[in-house]
Amino acid sequence: MSDNQLPDTGRAAGNAVAPPLSRRRFLSVAGLGAGAAAAGAGALRPGPAVAAGPDPNIVPVPAWSKTLGPGVNVNPYGKPSKFEKDVVRREVTWLTASSESSVSFTPLYALDGVITPNGLCFVRHHGGEAEIDPDKYRFMIHGMVDKELVFTLDDIKRMPGRVNRAYFLECAANSGMEWRGAQLNGCQFTHGMIHNVFYTGVPLRAFLDMAGVKPKGKWVLAEGADAAVMTRSIPIEKALDDCLVAFAMNGEALRPEQGYPVRLVVPGWEGNMWIKWLRRIKVGDQPWQQREETSKYTDLLADGRSRRFTFIMDAKSVVTSPSPQAPLRQKGPNVLTGIAWSGRGSIKRVDVSLDGGRNWTTARLEGPVMPMAMTRFYLDFDWAGQELMVQSRAMDDTGYVQPTKNELRAVRGTNSIYHNNGIQTWLVRSNGETENVEVG
Amino acid sequence: MSDNQLPDTGRAAGNAVAPPLSRRRFLSVAGLGAGAAAAGAGALRPGPAVAAGPDPNIVPVPAWSKTLGPGVNVNPYGKPSKFEKDVVRREVTWLTASSESSVSFTPLYALDGVITPNGLCFVRHHGGEAEIDPDKYRFMIHGMVDKELVFTLDDIKRMPGRVNRAYFLECAANSGMEWRGAQLNGCQFTHGMIHNVFYTGVPLRAFLDMAGVKPKGKWVLAEGADAAVMTRSIPIEKALDDCLVAFAMNGEALRPEQGYPVRLVVPGWEGNMWIKWLRRIKVGDQPWQQREETSKYTDLLADGRSRRFTFIMDAKSVVTSPSPQAPLRQKGPNVLTGIAWSGRGSIKRVDVSLDGGRNWTTARLEGPVMPMAMTRFYLDFDWAGQELMVQSRAMDDTGYVQPTKNELRAVRGTNSIYHNNGIQTWLVRSNGETENVEVG
Repeated sequence: MSDNQLPDTGRAAGNAVAPPLSRRRFLSVAGLGAGAAAAGAGALRPGPAVAAGPDPNIVPVPAWSKTLGPGVNVNPYGKPSKFEKDVVRREVTWLTASSESSVSFTPLYALDGVITPNGLCFVRHHGGEAEIDPDKYRFMIHGMVDKELVFTLDDIKRMPGRVNRAYFLECAANSGMEWRGAQLNGCQFTHGMIHNVFYTGVPLRAFLDMAGVKPKGKWVLAEGADAAVMTRSIPIEKALDDCLVAFAMNGEALRPEQGYPVRLVVPGWEGNMWIKWLRRIKVGDQPWQQREETSKYTDLLADGRSRRFTFIMDAKSVVTSPSPQAPLRQKGPNVLTGIAWSGRGSIKRVDVSLDGGRNWTTARLEGPVMPMAMTRFYLDFDWAGQELMVQSRAMDDTGYVQPTKNELRAVRGTNSIYHNNGIQTWLVRSNGETENVEVG
Repeated sequence: MSDNQLPDTGRAAGNAVAPPLSRRRFLSVAGLGAGAAAAGAGALRPGPAVAAGPDPNIVPVPAWSKTLGPGVNVNPYGKPSKFEKDVVRREVTWLTASSESSVSFTPLYALDGVITPNGLCFVRHHGGEAEIDPDKYRFMIHGMVDKELVFTLDDIKRMPGRVNRAYFLECAANSGMEWRGAQLNGCQFTHGMIHNVFYTGVPLRAFLDMAGVKPKGKWVLAEGADAAVMTRSIPIEKALDDCLVAFAMNGEALRPEQGYPVRLVVPGWEGNMWIKWLRRIKVGDQPWQQREETSKYTDLLADGRSRRFTFIMDAKSVVTSPSPQAPLRQKGPNVLTGIAWSGRGSIKRVDVSLDGGRNWTTARLEGPVMPMAMTRFYLDFDWAGQELMVQSRAMDDTGYVQPTKNELRAVRGTNSIYHNNGIQTWLVRSNGETENVEVG
């Protein structure tokens, strides 16, 4: 099979990518490449041909086929393989003043597809984690309504109009350390405050309609039952549009650290507003000016003024492999992959550059493309061993194009830690090691 | 708010459902109903109005808002809430001769949405679980091909054309005990040998094309590396159509009990063919007549002949709530939910009966409807406390309609344990308790 016969779906076209990448053969790790090279010119072989000598793992029967293994008694609730023990959420100790207010980052570099597994969804908590007995849980609607209402969890599950929707949740501070230059070496830390989950819940509108919002009601306050009593003001238009009172994620009950038993889902808007352990929605005629919308979660500009109520998370993307935690291991055919998302709608296109933004190739969007949900992209490419400057650039269906970091800085300065959706650059060295770098 | 103002999306229309269900108010558990009833005629209130007396869980601050809870140190790999400890896979001891060959059932009654969480995906293993070191894993393509090939796991991940697809996997024996009458009291046991997962992998076709299938090649043999060395014959047309060599499920690496590091995905076809711990694909000119396609996974008819190679899982559905493990708890508004799937395509429609099949109402399909994937349906209804005979009936986009059990028995007899896709009936008693029953 000649190199010209390679399937070309999503493959970087030679004339669209610079430096041009020659198409090389698969060469396996651990010395297996020699077998492949010997097997015949023009053959694209991932490993040694069988004719080149039997692999001891294939013939005779490997050890793992001779025993019953650890799975004879299946775990009632299953866990990952012991070989995946390093694929975990990680914290950095210096980011928050204490562990009562902390961040655990999603290991994006090791994940694929479009769903974030519940056990690996990033966590930002501001005052620990409320451990709520679901039988004692109550949810209140009050303020400027015709009838104030209190719901049990069972009541919420008996509401008509239950829906299932996949949405990304991104912390406004995701990539915040990058405002002043490349600082964190790994997409788990630069971009790992995001997850993508299928939620099951009831539109918030159903509760507000039942209570009857008075004409003066223009905002709602959402409050959590954690020790921080997290509170955020949300415009009534959004509350009546697509917000959900959610009780399940990816098919099962919400996880404790994600707000069990009930959280607010605010599609496309900054994660801090997705109040966990949701205890009440109050309707009012103006925002409440809470801590998390005044001293925090506002964007300090160069002139000392702040952008406020910057709710929407704009289009953004990042290459998750290769990346510092997922270096290139072999020359020849490789798969570049990453994720893209937009708080304004669906991802329309993702372009990838291998040369720091001089030339771009459109990647394949693969798997469902859903509004305000994480979208997976791939670019199949050949690597000759040259240095690469890998970037991705997302476009959404409003026509918005993800900016460079410098384009963002020119408008916003570098005071803020929030809403950095600039283009990320990874430098792949000729040995495959990959670093977080800045390009001009 | 009068009952007539209730939103009617997906709500059972009065004249389409018999016995007709009157629309009752929400009445909360634990005595809260009295408060609601007292709060004003015509008010649809899930619990007491605030004006009727403060709920001690709302005012003052509940205990769980006063402490930091157990989440100060987030688990690197998260787990469900302690309050969900009963939502687990369950086994029955009498179904298989020994625990080396066993079944763990998905707790469908407690799940919602469209995804099955990895920790709760049903397991059927025939010879324990192969514990494979991913660095030593090899995958071979051989037999009637131009070039025999061996791949490492890393090679598979470097193949062009990686995809993400959601598919249901149903064991051919799911609902098998129901052929001779209602026997298992709970959808976890009657229908729990199914899960729905987003797979990441490479089309099997890419490997076969690389090896070059000889013109004589009409079947492939897929073999697992478990102690059972599970083997199945698959027609080459299916192998070249939509089968995947998958290495991730719902975003993360395959779970050990689901074939880590690599399994075969055979969309819409019986689960036994989705070879776990996939070690080789051999191309041949006829099926291999393996144990699992001769003495097992064939459908013994009344006259002693067997249907063979009955690969496709036909359209089927089940109501997961209410069901024996999820009884009705309150009169008034309730949400009926369930799942539907078809191995021939997409679910087009699901009808629900509350009177044992005399009258039917079309349910709402909610969440993405994807081909050969589990589809979620809901019917919002009011319950006056009368006995119900709950059924669901799926239709797919080929026009196929899920049959009754008796329609199936008339054609297939009752000797087989496989491919029972008959309509399931749950009897809801006036106290809400629910049982598995047969209707004529």
